[in-house]
Amino acid sequence: MSPSTVDPSDPVFQLHRGGKMAVASTVPLTSREDLSLAYTPGVARVCEAIAADPALVDDYTWVSHTVAVVTDGSAVLGLGNIGPRGAMPVMEGKAVLFKQFGGVDAVPICLDTQDVDEIVSVVTALAPSFGGINLEDISAPRCFEIERRLDEALPIPVFHDDQHGTAIVVLAALRNAATLLDRKLGDLRVVVSGAGAAGIAVTKMLIAGGVNPAETLVCDSRGILHRDRADLTSAKAELAVVTNAAGRTGGIAEALAGADVLVGVSGGQIPEAAVAGMAPRGIVFALANPTPEVHPDVAARHVAVVATGRSDFPNQINNVLAFPGVFRGALDARATRITDGMKVAAADAIAGVVADALSADAIVPSPLDPRVAPAVSAAVAEAARRDGVARA
Amino acid sequence: MSPSTVDPSDPVFQLHRGGKMAVASTVPLTSREDLSLAYTPGVARVCEAIAADPALVDDYTWVSHTVAVVTDGSAVLGLGNIGPRGAMPVMEGKAVLFKQFGGVDAVPICLDTQDVDEIVSVVTALAPSFGGINLEDISAPRCFEIERRLDEALPIPVFHDDQHGTAIVVLAALRNAATLLDRKLGDLRVVVSGAGAAGIAVTKMLIAGGVNPAETLVCDSRGILHRDRADLTSAKAELAVVTNAAGRTGGIAEALAGADVLVGVSGGQIPEAAVAGMAPRGIVFALANPTPEVHPDVAARHVAVVATGRSDFPNQINNVLAFPGVFRGALDARATRITDGMKVAAADAIAGVVADALSADAIVPSPLDPRVAPAVSAAVAEAARRDGVARA
Repeated sequence: MSPSTVDPSDPVFQLHRGGKMAVASTVPLTSREDLSLAYTPGVARVCEAIAADPALVDDYTWVSHTVAVVTDGSAVLGLGNIGPRGAMPVMEGKAVLFKQFGGVDAVPICLDTQDVDEIVSVVTALAPSFGGINLEDISAPRCFEIERRLDEALPIPVFHDDQHGTAIVVLAALRNAATLLDRKLGDLRVVVSGAGAAGIAVTKMLIAGGVNPAETLVCDSRGILHRDRADLTSAKAELAVVTNAAGRTGGIAEALAGADVLVGVSGGQIPEAAVAGMAPRGIVFALANPTPEVHPDVAARHVAVVATGRSDFPNQINNVLAFPGVFRGALDARATRITDGMKVAAADAIAGVVADALSADAIVPSPLDPRVAPAVSAAVAEAARRDGVARA
Repeated sequence: MSPSTVDPSDPVFQLHRGGKMAVASTVPLTSREDLSLAYTPGVARVCEAIAADPALVDDYTWVSHTVAVVTDGSAVLGLGNIGPRGAMPVMEGKAVLFKQFGGVDAVPICLDTQDVDEIVSVVTALAPSFGGINLEDISAPRCFEIERRLDEALPIPVFHDDQHGTAIVVLAALRNAATLLDRKLGDLRVVVSGAGAAGIAVTKMLIAGGVNPAETLVCDSRGILHRDRADLTSAKAELAVVTNAAGRTGGIAEALAGADVLVGVSGGQIPEAAVAGMAPRGIVFALANPTPEVHPDVAARHVAVVATGRSDFPNQINNVLAFPGVFRGALDARATRITDGMKVAAADAIAGVVADALSADAIVPSPLDPRVAPAVSAAVAEAARRDGVARA
């Protein structure tokens, strides 16, 4: 059976029949009196109050607890550019996770355009309907411009989860791995393999969290990013200036020689010999899914801590540890945007949940750990207030 | 207290606190196995199947039971152009009525633009996310062009409720009033007072339902529409050609002289003397809200049947009798659009619910009558199949 065939006996297809979500009324609608309060004529008084003071939309509508999960279907999971309809099951999944873990009411919005200007204009037009925008599965480098322009244009949080959700959980995991190994973040030599959306965001987040940029190397498919490479996109060129102070060149093997940390977000394969060249007591996060850049059992021969994106190995780096609490906290604080400080606070909160019970097989909480989202949301809301972007 | 002030002791504001709706998951999400089915890695199989055959989006996502309730906030209730945030409580109200009466999952989308081209482009981009588009509270004449262009562009139903919802219920009410008075629809002389979105749609719907266009008169604020008027928008000019075969001129009093039916959708006031000039055993639907064009007690002195838009008088002409069942039926049939035949079928179904217990005070069902939406949806789905627009 081809992978694109429907198998009605497959539990996945059975579960997806009719979709995974619904809308619910939270008010009674069974009497004439109910209708006259929730709809005409009563509703007109609420409309007039909001028209006079638009900030009241946060108090008297569902807007302040909603998020639009927006995609153009251009980079869905590892499946590539499968379009808005193919993307919908992922966006619904994201929406139900938002609800389950963050109590956030999320609406999947799959767009029938992949034009950057049009996506920016559509999401800008939609924005009054939502308390936040979660961008999802939009290909690089388009995702950078889309996020930057929306973040500048809109008075609500905009967050590209494939970048920042991953980056937050990687920082959380690295904090705990470093603690476990009695190392300081700023002393680690870090290699990020992959310079797509996730790789670039992970690198920036690690630096914001305390990793030394001078001793950080980022590799794309052509090797280590350095100042003299003429083939870099603007996002990569920006990283090349900040990282790799020594101007090292070469491929992943040269990058890993003597390194303490490998974060793989490339989808490619990394030879065991390259991992073997890392410094003693190293750390490998091989996050490609479903096939990690290096098999965790192979990596474990050479390093002290291994994490993957998979649920069937220890230390699953799963975005669900971040995004529900990040948005819950941002919405609770009525934040106007999501700052680096809020992201670092989210990472610290995730790390903190398991900080008193660290082991090489437990540097991050389980994705189902109910302590995570409340800890993240509280930390994010507090950071929003500290960073001056909170309205509540 | 000014009408735009928040009164926290007002039950309307109490009910609206935090909004009126939420999103709910319809699948379990409590175990690792649950996550691996509803989200990664399992969900990828559903995405691939839909990418290979986009029609499967109807079977394996929530799209086929959803409707976007779209407004630009330009003509909200009787409040006018109060913008997208002020409009949100009405759109949420609509969404919860969709759920309560039609089992339709509706999402309020309030747009931060009032440019026709941009609205068309935004809604077109959103369309893969929804099974239908309910346009709401968009001012005339912009609403006509927006609906027409979206109806042409999109493979899903597009329905401007302020036009067609009202028109369907008016046709239902007029059918039953005519039956009660032992008159035929085609023999009635009808006057429609008001040539905005509702007036134009009501006139077209009544003609589609059997009213004689030659004997129909439509009045705007300057009087009866006729072929020689040079001040008409294209929508009004179209009606002037179809109606008023005798080329009558004058104001509402001249129009009503000898008429059998008055449908008021103007918001203005109609003098008692004009109503007194109607033919014996007449019918008055005075639908302006909250102040009918003529008070129902005053109208009742001169005609046999009176209806209003108000819940505190008999015969409430309320759109909620139509839109939940219309979309439920269209979605059940996976209709590609909503035809005149489907609208007439909806009107007949609404009328049919109370056909065996007609009285002058009960020509339409109560908005809360649970028999209405199932009857309407069945009739609409059948009409969709008959009209060749059904995909299921």
